[in-house]
Amino acid sequence: MSEAERASGPGALVQASELTLSRLQTTFSAERERWSAVHPALDEAFGILERLASGSGKRLRPAFCYWAHRGGGGDPGDPRLVDLMAGLELLHAFALAHDDVMDGSDSRRGQPTVHRSIEAIHRGQQWSGDPAKFGEAGAILLGDLGHVMADTLVAELPIDVRHEWNLLRIEVNVGQYLDVLGAAMRSTDPNLTRAITVYKSARYSVVRPLRLGALLAGRGDLADQLERFGEPLGVAFQLRDDILGVFGDPEVTGKPVGDDLREAKATELLAVAHERATPTQSRVLEKMGAAMSAADVADVQEVLVDCGASDEIEDRIGELLRGAIGHLGSVDADASSIEALESLARYVAVRLR
Amino acid sequence: MSEAERASGPGALVQASELTLSRLQTTFSAERERWSAVHPALDEAFGILERLASGSGKRLRPAFCYWAHRGGGGDPGDPRLVDLMAGLELLHAFALAHDDVMDGSDSRRGQPTVHRSIEAIHRGQQWSGDPAKFGEAGAILLGDLGHVMADTLVAELPIDVRHEWNLLRIEVNVGQYLDVLGAAMRSTDPNLTRAITVYKSARYSVVRPLRLGALLAGRGDLADQLERFGEPLGVAFQLRDDILGVFGDPEVTGKPVGDDLREAKATELLAVAHERATPTQSRVLEKMGAAMSAADVADVQEVLVDCGASDEIEDRIGELLRGAIGHLGSVDADASSIEALESLARYVAVRLR
Repeated sequence: MSEAERASGPGALVQASELTLSRLQTTFSAERERWSAVHPALDEAFGILERLASGSGKRLRPAFCYWAHRGGGGDPGDPRLVDLMAGLELLHAFALAHDDVMDGSDSRRGQPTVHRSIEAIHRGQQWSGDPAKFGEAGAILLGDLGHVMADTLVAELPIDVRHEWNLLRIEVNVGQYLDVLGAAMRSTDPNLTRAITVYKSARYSVVRPLRLGALLAGRGDLADQLERFGEPLGVAFQLRDDILGVFGDPEVTGKPVGDDLREAKATELLAVAHERATPTQSRVLEKMGAAMSAADVADVQEVLVDCGASDEIEDRIGELLRGAIGHLGSVDADASSIEALESLARYVAVRLR
Repeated sequence: MSEAERASGPGALVQASELTLSRLQTTFSAERERWSAVHPALDEAFGILERLASGSGKRLRPAFCYWAHRGGGGDPGDPRLVDLMAGLELLHAFALAHDDVMDGSDSRRGQPTVHRSIEAIHRGQQWSGDPAKFGEAGAILLGDLGHVMADTLVAELPIDVRHEWNLLRIEVNVGQYLDVLGAAMRSTDPNLTRAITVYKSARYSVVRPLRLGALLAGRGDLADQLERFGEPLGVAFQLRDDILGVFGDPEVTGKPVGDDLREAKATELLAVAHERATPTQSRVLEKMGAAMSAADVADVQEVLVDCGASDEIEDRIGELLRGAIGHLGSVDADASSIEALESLARYVAVRLR
């Protein structure tokens, strides 16, 4: 895969992304028109959420859903598919808005986070009270509104699709809870880091979107086949995220450098590092936390390389990718969709953002 | 209505409340069992949400839903009704958990708020990072989990019921957004305070629960009739809340005294006060905000009485109640349900919490 593709993604992302963005636009237009009649500030608020949802994301979840649906013989122009893809992307915007409040992040997708945008309105208008608290409250509520909008998009889908959707929703929030817990506990327990990987990412970002697309095409059998492909790939997805959270280029990821280290996230990368580190290296790892300097970040990065942890994670990613692609051989779907899913898998494993 | 009934509520609340609590217990047991297998901390977390959801609430929304359903000839033992009532109550717990984070409240329903409970776990375990931030993150996520659980309870209900449910969900979050906005703007614009009243309370707490019950009974006609009863009653509900937010007894309400004043909420009570206040009284009203002393709270309370604002709101509540009860005359439902709805209406207007 070329450097350009590693940064921007393969062609298999394009059509799903375009359909998703177009549907997001119509759903936001309708909400903005409806609520701006009640108060003009609501139009501005929904606009901030729309900017996040339609910002420079990878749109991986819609793409997995799309190719599973199409691979199962579903009509790629089915408006229910488009609703489902837009629902997935809007649900992701909800999760990001809340995540950024919890982490106190300033930027996301190369733009100010929702809470910082709302804080800036408060400052600009010189309203009463604490602008930062206002920004957080606004982002919590806009996240909740995104959650309801996402859910409304899928309201008329068949019950088996909606059951899968509900599993996805509860799992991602449980995964997020474990993620926050792991950071607070400074946990290096591999069972906990694996649970975070599985719930927060593997199922949410890969397995459930694939299953949703297959189920919408009426192909429960395909959903189960794709789960075997998606489970290792989803773990690889999170391991790549672990690497990018430490070594990613902020110009490409849209997130600050060393984000995961400052938040002391309980990642598999760090769990491996704790196992492999010498006593001297362990003391460097203890610098992780909110108060790290840029030099501390660089020191920890160095330890993660020197102790062999980042290589080990790279090896695991490679192995998981091979395993996932191996399972594609026994997936009963059309050849062009299999090819698209393979290109998405390769991208997930080596992406730069 | 006796003082005891004003505090604890009429008999019409009892059966709906018992059915709701019992269903909440089974849904929480299932989730706790499912997630404690992943990590024991999840059991503790879901337990905190359960304690909020099944705490000393009034269970008004389930009661409105119950009597509308029963009044429309629905079977009061219909498990779908019980799911819907538990869904309403769990959705309310989600809204409360997020509201308390946004307002920085310490207590709710006479217990520590969700974020304070989670903060206390962090302190007890001496985990890393800021305990208060951890508490807030945990409460945001537990709220989100409650939102998903509530929604999962209603997943199999008919589509017209679920459309109504989705309206309720989006309206309450919009109402909350306007509420936060109104406080920041120190707004005394009656259009804004009325919009807050309608979306945050009237529709969410009264109109939609009534319509949901009637729709579940297959009685769209009854839903429309009850809306005419519910709209003025819902406004009265919020006006009573405005009074209780300033003058309520914290032992009965479970919330700190003068809560709304410290948060400078844009209520109709305060909008009226701003219209009626003399220049001297207006200067007293300007003391509202986070930094108020107990003496400031008492001063503002006095102005609200002296300028005639609290009397005007009491008069409005009385008029709205009479209007609502007048509409009950043209509601096509069985006599015992009409009687129950009337007792709920009277309670809503004069309740002490």
